[in-house]
Amino acid sequence: MSNLYLVGIGPGSGKYLTKEAEDVVNSSEIVIGSKRALKLFPDMKAEKIELNAQNMGEMLKLAVSKAADNNKVALLSTGDPGFSGLLKPIQKIKGNLDLEVVPGISSIQLCASKLQIPWDEANIITMHGKGFSSSLLPLLSNGRPTIILPNTTINETVNYLMEKGIEPNRAVAVCENLSYENEKVVKAKLEELLAEKFGYMCVLVVY
Amino acid sequence: MSNLYLVGIGPGSGKYLTKEAEDVVNSSEIVIGSKRALKLFPDMKAEKIELNAQNMGEMLKLAVSKAADNNKVALLSTGDPGFSGLLKPIQKIKGNLDLEVVPGISSIQLCASKLQIPWDEANIITMHGKGFSSSLLPLLSNGRPTIILPNTTINETVNYLMEKGIEPNRAVAVCENLSYENEKVVKAKLEELLAEKFGYMCVLVVY
Repeated sequence: MSNLYLVGIGPGSGKYLTKEAEDVVNSSEIVIGSKRALKLFPDMKAEKIELNAQNMGEMLKLAVSKAADNNKVALLSTGDPGFSGLLKPIQKIKGNLDLEVVPGISSIQLCASKLQIPWDEANIITMHGKGFSSSLLPLLSNGRPTIILPNTTINETVNYLMEKGIEPNRAVAVCENLSYENEKVVKAKLEELLAEKFGYMCVLVVY
Repeated sequence: MSNLYLVGIGPGSGKYLTKEAEDVVNSSEIVIGSKRALKLFPDMKAEKIELNAQNMGEMLKLAVSKAADNNKVALLSTGDPGFSGLLKPIQKIKGNLDLEVVPGISSIQLCASKLQIPWDEANIITMHGKGFSSSLLPLLSNGRPTIILPNTTINETVNYLMEKGIEPNRAVAVCENLSYENEKVVKAKLEELLAEKFGYMCVLVVY
């Protein structure tokens, strides 16, 4: 039996939580997650520990050490822990500790659902934690739509793609704030995105 | 507002249902799905229509025509409708009818969770509805693990891969009956899989 659970909570709203995620969280003694993530579990009795961009490394270590001390610990990961989530950073520090991973709906999947793209025939790539990656560009000419989790603003990403020779009139779409009240889906040509204002929670599709 | 909902129900057990899937199904007038899928929603008041491998095409047409007649119709798709699910066949026949897609946890994701494979760095490929695909083989030498939804038995798939020159001692894993009581995870060398007996609900990983 593992004491450390890495729990995918989906793209943000409680609508995409699974029962398994709720059961694991509601039976844990310590739950570590972002403020937003913790709010999704109003029924939990666990000690809550807030994680943010600044204390991330420290909190991941805390999760491991609390679990090693025999507490049932749930660590909340936006989307699916295995897609651009907390799986990789936890693997680096967990040592011999057993781990269980609960999958969640990735924003990539919700984007594919909204735009009705069969993603078994799409390119799927995360730029999170990477600079602009040269591995992205070849994908854009293989005839499949490319679903991108960008590492920077849509504006910067669009400028990068046009600098690298992607046609300004290439068909694209942006899904912003997926699953939230202010969710927005924009279908446009690449250069038209420069006239729009987007926040940081975006998925970009290049058709 | 759409009348036709394509609802991902996850890999099989109710543990991976999302609230959104439940809400859509429980507010539908007609729900079409496999016997196993229909059982996941004991609270639904809808008319239930059973779908199986034989009547699939007919039932998809029925879903479209019932929705066109202004009924709220939920069509249940195992896993995620956009990954080797019902999205593609429905797109072919739905004409102008509006469609909403509710994503679900794919067995590919649950496999990645069980084996703790970050799938943003894995090859992901479905063989469903295809013959042995030559697109699979190049993936097996690009240095990433490959998560495969096979179109045939593990035995036949292993024989095919060995015929095509994949080393018999290549590290592999099979996840069988994911999310069910009789779930089984086997880590082995490729040729060792020939000594095991697997059913049809398997995901194969080639490391």
